[in-house]
Amino acid sequence: MNETIKLQHNHRSIRSYKADPVSDEMLNAIIEAGHRAPSSMNAQEISVVVVRDAERKTKIAELAGGQAWIAQAPVFIAIVADYNKTDIGVRKAGQTQVIHESMEGLIVAGIDAGLVLANMMVAAHSLGLGIVPIGGLRRSPQAIVDLLGLPQLTFPLVGLCIGHIEKDAPLKPRMDVNTFRHDERYDASHYQEAIDNYDATIMEYWKQLGRTDGLSWSQNLGNNLKQVYYPQVKPVAAMQGLLNDK
Amino acid sequence: MNETIKLQHNHRSIRSYKADPVSDEMLNAIIEAGHRAPSSMNAQEISVVVVRDAERKTKIAELAGGQAWIAQAPVFIAIVADYNKTDIGVRKAGQTQVIHESMEGLIVAGIDAGLVLANMMVAAHSLGLGIVPIGGLRRSPQAIVDLLGLPQLTFPLVGLCIGHIEKDAPLKPRMDVNTFRHDERYDASHYQEAIDNYDATIMEYWKQLGRTDGLSWSQNLGNNLKQVYYPQVKPVAAMQGLLNDK
Repeated sequence: MNETIKLQHNHRSIRSYKADPVSDEMLNAIIEAGHRAPSSMNAQEISVVVVRDAERKTKIAELAGGQAWIAQAPVFIAIVADYNKTDIGVRKAGQTQVIHESMEGLIVAGIDAGLVLANMMVAAHSLGLGIVPIGGLRRSPQAIVDLLGLPQLTFPLVGLCIGHIEKDAPLKPRMDVNTFRHDERYDASHYQEAIDNYDATIMEYWKQLGRTDGLSWSQNLGNNLKQVYYPQVKPVAAMQGLLNDK
Repeated sequence: MNETIKLQHNHRSIRSYKADPVSDEMLNAIIEAGHRAPSSMNAQEISVVVVRDAERKTKIAELAGGQAWIAQAPVFIAIVADYNKTDIGVRKAGQTQVIHESMEGLIVAGIDAGLVLANMMVAAHSLGLGIVPIGGLRRSPQAIVDLLGLPQLTFPLVGLCIGHIEKDAPLKPRMDVNTFRHDERYDASHYQEAIDNYDATIMEYWKQLGRTDGLSWSQNLGNNLKQVYYPQVKPVAAMQGLLNDK
């Protein structure tokens, strides 16, 4: 197994960072890895906002629901759906952009944001840095829109903390790979058993970490997926002009 | 710059593959890189379907709009939103899953699919293999659902061809990085100029490749984003139980 795949297999989220800054050279290489990610139709409809200002990071940490590591990490990157950029091109071609009003447009922006995010994560890992992705960027999207100056046709999708590792973290077990990989056709006949096993594995994992508040995978999802976890996404996206009506 | 970042900066899509199979060892390492990608709330709501059967690949190539490289590549991987998997956990916890009826749920599935896709792409690149992501998996989603046996609460999001490179491809220029990277706050004041420059760069790129049918970035997006490019996404997702009403 080569070094790159080893890094990927060794991915874990870090929530404790040193105060040392990330050098411009490292940050530029990480950003460029994100920039080189492919996008659907080469639309390049993802932008990132790099936040290093302490006050702004502290505000984002609060808006994300009190995630102290956002304030602590020297670099926070907001990954943004940017159909404003594509709209300029579409107008230049004498057309009217419609894609941002569709489910297809949202899904594509999500996928392409994930490509940028993963590329930046892997690049940061390869430099020995720690990272944690931040879904909480969607918790208070209107405030994030205001804080980052995001115009119409843009929306904050997901964030990323980057910094030098203060306290490393163990690998979190994944569910059996046979619930992830299917061959030729989807087959869920073993899901229930794999989930039961995984629930036990996760409880054991919490125990080893000395965490008494840990929930099983099923309990955690029961609590979180019985609702729309970030209910402001749809109304704020609509105010930004991003609909899912088509 | 290290080897991993070099691979990422050197990303390009390959559409010409040798007949040689991808070894099980390589494929397993690639799948595991995808499996180790993080997911929102550790939901692990992405699954992949590995297709190596020649007839099935040929069918997918047709359904994607006549993309011969899908039939030619020895491995095609469909990346699938799998809220069926999470639903089993949520039910086990005695709750009713709601997230799959929301815009938030779609965005999260998109982002997490992108993370899996990027990790598999980078892993394949690191093994010297060629890849091309396939958005055309969304062109005829009902037929893909049938072909891959995808149950309710699942949806095919994006595909990936993997194989040994027959004919390499040049790097496609990206728009200036200052249209991708913003610092502290979003600033699009230079977008129009950057887009004009990029349109000229892309036309020069086509010329160097001897392609006389190449369009500028703006012209290409004008043609493609004036519409919902894959209009079956929303109705078929709804038939699969994935809504965006919340």
